[in-house]
Amino acid sequence: MDEKNIRLTLTYDGSQYHGWQRQDNGITIQEVVEEKLEIMFGAPIKLLASGRTDAGVHAMDQVCNFTSGSNIEPDAIKRGLNSLLPDDIHVNTTDYVPAEFHARYSAISKIYEYWILNQTAPNVFLRHYLWHIRAPLDTGEMAKGLAMLMGSHDFSSFKSSGSSNTNPVRTISRAELYGPDEDGILRIIIEADGFLRHMVRNIVGTVVEVGLGKRSTDGFRAVLEAKDRQTAGIKAPAQGLFLVSVRY
Amino acid sequence: MDEKNIRLTLTYDGSQYHGWQRQDNGITIQEVVEEKLEIMFGAPIKLLASGRTDAGVHAMDQVCNFTSGSNIEPDAIKRGLNSLLPDDIHVNTTDYVPAEFHARYSAISKIYEYWILNQTAPNVFLRHYLWHIRAPLDTGEMAKGLAMLMGSHDFSSFKSSGSSNTNPVRTISRAELYGPDEDGILRIIIEADGFLRHMVRNIVGTVVEVGLGKRSTDGFRAVLEAKDRQTAGIKAPAQGLFLVSVRY
Repeated sequence: MDEKNIRLTLTYDGSQYHGWQRQDNGITIQEVVEEKLEIMFGAPIKLLASGRTDAGVHAMDQVCNFTSGSNIEPDAIKRGLNSLLPDDIHVNTTDYVPAEFHARYSAISKIYEYWILNQTAPNVFLRHYLWHIRAPLDTGEMAKGLAMLMGSHDFSSFKSSGSSNTNPVRTISRAELYGPDEDGILRIIIEADGFLRHMVRNIVGTVVEVGLGKRSTDGFRAVLEAKDRQTAGIKAPAQGLFLVSVRY
Repeated sequence: MDEKNIRLTLTYDGSQYHGWQRQDNGITIQEVVEEKLEIMFGAPIKLLASGRTDAGVHAMDQVCNFTSGSNIEPDAIKRGLNSLLPDDIHVNTTDYVPAEFHARYSAISKIYEYWILNQTAPNVFLRHYLWHIRAPLDTGEMAKGLAMLMGSHDFSSFKSSGSSNTNPVRTISRAELYGPDEDGILRIIIEADGFLRHMVRNIVGTVVEVGLGKRSTDGFRAVLEAKDRQTAGIKAPAQGLFLVSVRY
C-alpha cells in the first residue's frame, strides 16, 4: 500500500478558534480538521500546515499536507471534509503532491493581508475582520514606512517574545498599502519568505503609529534598525489579519 | 418641559437576534436598544420603528423614533447609545424631528436588498449575510420576473400567513437584480410603499425558482395573478435579507 502525500487548502474564519495549532486551552482549526479526517480515514491523521495562525487570525488559503495509505481520491476527500466541517472552515482544493512536498518547508513565500477600517463609524457586518481606527491615518506616510521594509533585514524589532526562531533575518518582497476602498477599508499586504512571531501584527501596529503622526518615517526606520522589540509600537489585533496564500 | 420627538437610525447584524420586535422567546433588537435608552434617560422609552425585521434579518439603516421630555441632545444620545450597545448594533444618526413624525406611518417607501451567493464554493467570511445557491442561476430570466412586479398589485401570493394586513395591495417602484460581483454575489433590490409579511423573502424564493429553470417567467406572472400563497415558491432564508433604507 503506497503512502500518498495529499495537499489541502483551507479558508477559515478564525474568530471562534484558538488559532491553528493544537493546544490544551481551546478548540483549534488543526484539531477540528484532523478530527474530521480521522472520521473519513478511520485512523488518526497528522496535518502539517504552512505555518500557525494565531487565535482570531483568518486564512483565505492556508496550505496543509498529510500522508495516508488510503485510496480515497482527493475529490472525495474534499467533498467529505466539506460535508463534515463547520461552516467557518472550508476546503478549497485537494490534490496529490510528490512525497517530498512539505507545506511548511517547501514554501517559497507567504502573503498576509491586514484590514483596517479608517472612519468614525464601525462596520457592523465586517466587525470580526477589521481593526477599527477612528482617527484619520496618513496613508502616504504609512506606505513610505512599509516600503522601508523591502529586502532582507533582521526583523527582531517586530518579533514578539516567546518565539523559537533563532535567525531573525527575513526577506520581504512586497509591503504595500491599498485603499481606502468604498467601505473605508485599508489593506496592508506583506509578502515574505517567512515571518517571525507576530511579525505582521507588530509591523502594522507600528506603521499605524506613523499614520497617526506619532512616529515619523525616519523613526520607523530607526525601529527596524534597532533590532529591539522595545522600540516598536503596539501589536495590531488578531482579527484584522488574513493569511492570503502560500507560494511553492 | 417640552416633549421632543427624536429620530434614530440603526445598523444591525440580525444574526443573533429574534428580530426587531419585543417578544418572550428571545432577545430582540428593540429590547436591547430600549434597555440602553432607559439607562440613559432613567425612564422606560418606547421605540417606534419603520417596521419589524424578522429573526436573522439585518438592517443597514433602520429608522426609529421616540419621544422624551429630557434635554439630552441628539449627539449625546448617539454617543451614549453607541458606548452602551453591543458591537452588532450601531446608531448611525440621531436628530430632532417634528412632533408628527412617525417612523412607520410617515414612511413613503422602504428599500430591501437580498444577497445570493451563486457559485459552488461558500463564502466563509460573509456566510451570515448570504443565501448560498450552488446551481447556476439564469439572472436574465430572474430580472424579467422581477420586472413583472413593478407597479401596484395585490401581492397575496407573496404574503405569508399570520399577517394582520387586510389590504394586500402594494406598489413596487423598483425590483432589480445586480451582479454577480467579483465575489459571485447577486443582489436583488426591491423598493415599495410597504411590504406584506415575508413578502421580499417569498418573492426571492420564487424568482430563484425562475433562475433555476423550475418556473418560466410566464409561470412567475401567473403566481402574481393567482393572489394565492400556495402558488408561490419557497421562502428565501432570513440571513440574506437587509433593510437598506426608508424614505420619508
